[in-house]
Amino acid sequence: MIPAAVITVSDSCFRKEREDLSGPAVVAELVSNGFDVVFRLIVPDERQVIEDALRTASRQARFVVTTGGTGIAPRDVTPEATITVCNRLIDGIAEIMRSEGRHQTILASLSRAVCGCYGTTLILNLPGSPRGAVASLNSALPVIPHALALLQGDVRHDDESAVNISAPTRGQV
Amino acid sequence: MIPAAVITVSDSCFRKEREDLSGPAVVAELVSNGFDVVFRLIVPDERQVIEDALRTASRQARFVVTTGGTGIAPRDVTPEATITVCNRLIDGIAEIMRSEGRHQTILASLSRAVCGCYGTTLILNLPGSPRGAVASLNSALPVIPHALALLQGDVRHDDESAVNISAPTRGQV
Amino acid sequence: MIPAAVITVSDSCFRKEREDLSGPAVVAELVSNGFDVVFRLIVPDERQVIEDALRTASRQARFVVTTGGTGIAPRDVTPEATITVCNRLIDGIAEIMRSEGRHQTILASLSRAVCGCYGTTLILNLPGSPRGAVASLNSALPVIPHALALLQGDVRHDDESAVNISAPTRGQV
Repeated sequence: MIPAAVITVSDSCFRKEREDLSGPAVVAELVSNGFDVVFRLIVPDERQVIEDALRTASRQARFVVTTGGTGIAPRDVTPEATITVCNRLIDGIAEIMRSEGRHQTILASLSRAVCGCYGTTLILNLPGSPRGAVASLNSALPVIPHALALLQGDVRHDDESAVNISAPTRGQV
Repeated sequence: MIPAAVITVSDSCFRKEREDLSGPAVVAELVSNGFDVVFRLIVPDERQVIEDALRTASRQARFVVTTGGTGIAPRDVTPEATITVCNRLIDGIAEIMRSEGRHQTILASLSRAVCGCYGTTLILNLPGSPRGAVASLNSALPVIPHALALLQGDVRHDDESAVNISAPTRGQV
Repeated sequence: MIPAAVITVSDSCFRKEREDLSGPAVVAELVSNGFDVVFRLIVPDERQVIEDALRTASRQARFVVTTGGTGIAPRDVTPEATITVCNRLIDGIAEIMRSEGRHQTILASLSRAVCGCYGTTLILNLPGSPRGAVASLNSALPVIPHALALLQGDVRHDDESAVNISAPTRGQV
């Protein structure tokens, strides 16, 4: 089982003015997909606090998921914090989350959520609403186990022909 | 009514060697969509001049639209000027303009047009042809009012569940 | 005929531990599309070596294609080398390669391949598997001749209306 972390980023949830519904929804979805959620945290929309949380979570989990703070309001800084922490980004995962999200709502175009690598850990931003967070997670999940294997060197990076042959096609997923 | 600005970026239009057809086409489309066009300017393909025009327009308008200079020719520098001025970019809007543009012409892939935020103003690049400019504008328009509300703080950024429920789906737009 | 270069990026092919199948497959595809392949090289996954190879190839070819090193494994650094060499990127071409690649395998989302301009030369990253490399090349090829004409100034950048009228639609390509 892959150890995972879920970080809720929300001023109002941090101040307990609002119940965190997205965090538990994301945890449940991860558990039902076979992940072991070993780390949970609620942080305010503060860039430095989010960066610290991402680094702390990455010491315990190989898949770190955030929910919230991905929009374009002035307090939305989760993507900026994630970009600072990650050594490389995987644009195609952000792209597929927006692309599939647009089937639900055209406002998915406004999400600035990113996905990146921090050492051998994968960090994925999800939007703040429970429904949007779970939908985005499900768009990304099919490639996560393979991505983690590549990061850890379990798959030889130059053996891509083998990878492609065994890879599921979209229709089979 | 939302105050808007339209900036034509073109050496030949600036030198009056060619009639500016895209600027008026974009103005007409904005007006017919309920925007109040309060600022109009034609500038050459000079990065510093474009940056100054974007900042000046942003003092008067909340939605600043450029047309021209988004390609890959050496003189095309509108995206570079826009990225310099904006504090954050919204990749999903550039993505949807290219994605929908490809239904018209595969050359839409060559557009480097971006969309970004400068304070509470939204800046959107459109290509230089009248038809391409109006088509790209129409791809982006469905999310613009909501984006402007988020920038101005009219929508609480952590109240995304409400946003998602009320958001139009692609089919309804 | 447009002079082209093909660079295979692979530690194991460079050390002759594995036969380079992707390089020859890409060469064959380019030749059958009317390109003149004037430069061939196999390099290891070393950022500085790749950068040098890209600059050397660009002195002889106007279209430089790499295969390999576009994934997320620690040794995959072809995109980083390409971004360092290029003065501007064309996100739409990377996007269309991933978008069409996802019809074959959802793992296409993990490709970090980019396309960029270095002077009047176009540099395109392809994945490392022969099948993936040829498929990605074919996704990008329809816009390459026009992109090269724009880079060399053969098409006036402000004459985009003419370009759009004459451009092939996706259905016709």
